[in-house]
Amino acid sequence: MDPATQLPTVGMIGAGQLARMTHQAAIALGQSLKVLAADPAESAAVVTPAVTLGDYRDAADLLAFARDCTVVTFDHEHVPQEALKALVADGVDVQPRPEALRFAQDKQAMRERMGSLGLTQPRWAPVDSISDVEAFGLPCVLKAVSGGYDGKGVWMIDEPGQAQAVLASGIRLIAEERMPLQRELAIQIARSPRGETALYPVVETVQTAGICTEVVAPAPHLDEAVAEAARGIALTVANDLDVCGMLAVELFQTSKGLFVNELAMRAHNSGHWSIEGARTSQFEQHLRAVLDYPLGSTETAAPYTVMANVLGGESGGPRLDERLQQLLAEDPGAHVHLYGKAVRPGRKIGHVTVCGDDVDNLRRRAARAAQWLTEGK
Amino acid sequence: MDPATQLPTVGMIGAGQLARMTHQAAIALGQSLKVLAADPAESAAVVTPAVTLGDYRDAADLLAFARDCTVVTFDHEHVPQEALKALVADGVDVQPRPEALRFAQDKQAMRERMGSLGLTQPRWAPVDSISDVEAFGLPCVLKAVSGGYDGKGVWMIDEPGQAQAVLASGIRLIAEERMPLQRELAIQIARSPRGETALYPVVETVQTAGICTEVVAPAPHLDEAVAEAARGIALTVANDLDVCGMLAVELFQTSKGLFVNELAMRAHNSGHWSIEGARTSQFEQHLRAVLDYPLGSTETAAPYTVMANVLGGESGGPRLDERLQQLLAEDPGAHVHLYGKAVRPGRKIGHVTVCGDDVDNLRRRAARAAQWLTEGK
Repeated sequence: MDPATQLPTVGMIGAGQLARMTHQAAIALGQSLKVLAADPAESAAVVTPAVTLGDYRDAADLLAFARDCTVVTFDHEHVPQEALKALVADGVDVQPRPEALRFAQDKQAMRERMGSLGLTQPRWAPVDSISDVEAFGLPCVLKAVSGGYDGKGVWMIDEPGQAQAVLASGIRLIAEERMPLQRELAIQIARSPRGETALYPVVETVQTAGICTEVVAPAPHLDEAVAEAARGIALTVANDLDVCGMLAVELFQTSKGLFVNELAMRAHNSGHWSIEGARTSQFEQHLRAVLDYPLGSTETAAPYTVMANVLGGESGGPRLDERLQQLLAEDPGAHVHLYGKAVRPGRKIGHVTVCGDDVDNLRRRAARAAQWLTEGK
Repeated sequence: MDPATQLPTVGMIGAGQLARMTHQAAIALGQSLKVLAADPAESAAVVTPAVTLGDYRDAADLLAFARDCTVVTFDHEHVPQEALKALVADGVDVQPRPEALRFAQDKQAMRERMGSLGLTQPRWAPVDSISDVEAFGLPCVLKAVSGGYDGKGVWMIDEPGQAQAVLASGIRLIAEERMPLQRELAIQIARSPRGETALYPVVETVQTAGICTEVVAPAPHLDEAVAEAARGIALTVANDLDVCGMLAVELFQTSKGLFVNELAMRAHNSGHWSIEGARTSQFEQHLRAVLDYPLGSTETAAPYTVMANVLGGESGGPRLDERLQQLLAEDPGAHVHLYGKAVRPGRKIGHVTVCGDDVDNLRRRAARAAQWLTEGK
């Protein structure tokens, strides 16, 4: 608690774009987010004064960081369980709790738990040899049990040689069936320690090469029974796993219903639309949840909101500043969010959001805006 | 220009709440606002890493601050003309230019210029003695020619003794007639160096003891002819004075039409509603204008948006954190903005915004929300 402002201090482990956008939300709540960064040039570290440099895998670094924080939360799920437990043992208020976060860190534990909750999910099995993979059946997907993100740690396997290359890395793997999809959906829910929950609308997510490139909120033409099923899944996972903060459940929509794909217990790319598209953004909602504040309204602020991610383009061509000006001239109603990162091809360097009534037009506008920033034309 | 991000560096002289909210907007544009603060505890200084401590009246401090800025702009209008001109002489891109800013700094120069533009304004005269004031006629308003804000530098004069007390201070003064008002309005316009302009809707502003306490956007039940007149005034002032950045024109609505009250060439309390209520907030728009970026859409995001200022309450009672939680529980759709300032009675410490259809209900909600934070009940 800051004695001058009479307001809490939230510490976030990790200083990527999620922390950066959380800092914007923290400012509105009278705070200044404190971040643990590996490098002073990280996305959030360049916009907040309260930066601690340290290693998120090191319990001593975490303890020193956490000392004056009202609550500690996360920009990513990579903090080891032993380090988290050391924080809890030291009396730090860690949200979500390590026991919950584990299911966002370990895909095998998550699959086992989803199964025991009776939630529909792709057929899966742990694999550690080529004979395991062949017994599971090809084609399949191999996933690293931990550490993956943005398509990293996920391999599409059509033939044994591809599986062998992945198995050679020695990391823990599970195999999953490749589902015939209608589309991918996601649903976010906030939950606070007192057990209050707030559901956001089901959104459609579009992935390109494993990276989320477009989100449409709410998912167009969604059958109300499917939406209700998604809300039921989100509530079950949030309550049963005792989640605190934002939870994203990624779902496959198929002709046989919804299948649970992935979980994230933090702000998530599928919720960036909420900054302009909902009364309470996912970033403010996460802060409210981990502080056990009352949760905010998730009512939408427009009939449709579309978000497109901006990936870094090839080097050469106009500077990012010139690309930005072209985009602003082309679409005066586009909301631009740049992450302050050095531009590298394929790297997420920002996103663009548009709000309105005509979803097809919004999708074209968002894609065009992202293209301006990526390709400069 | 930051070499890593390929994006500009904006320097803001002053580190109050306007700079704080501008920093939030700068983050979205891929920047981190650089501020010149008098004290490290100032509202913007506690949320941005790029803080220079210095005196805004000192040309050497300003020059050192401005060195690596793409453009320098303002959180307040108190930088002396000589210091501004030293910056310009050194090649710094100062926006708005000193020649324009002068009319927001010097009420006598402003009144003379409004008169020469043929704009309707209260009858006024420079005064420097009690006989001047008596010749002008009582009751009247005395205003400090420079340095006033939030009701400071404005005195309601009913009898000569009150005028004498103000005259005794020795500051430059003008007298203005006290207008029989229907209500106060304000209009904001952004203008960029290339001459592009963007008008926001006319809003109603409510003042309490000289401090803006409520803004309703757009002004309810406003005759379209009056709105058109307000837009004409804003365009005339912005273009004729060669304003760059945000301009606010405060207006008296009377039975005889609109009268120009005050000008501000920066983000303004009458535009805080735009953070949630318009496609482009006044803070982002100011950045876009001073960078000569294309301006953003000023389309409203809701039929009505109401903002209420939060003033610091008497000491005692619940901590601000507890008051905030009470408010969040009472109104899950309220947007809260706290400025990170120590609480002192009557000091602006934040504002609350609500968006929706029913303006009377929104006004009640906003007033109630502000009351929770001020009085804790």
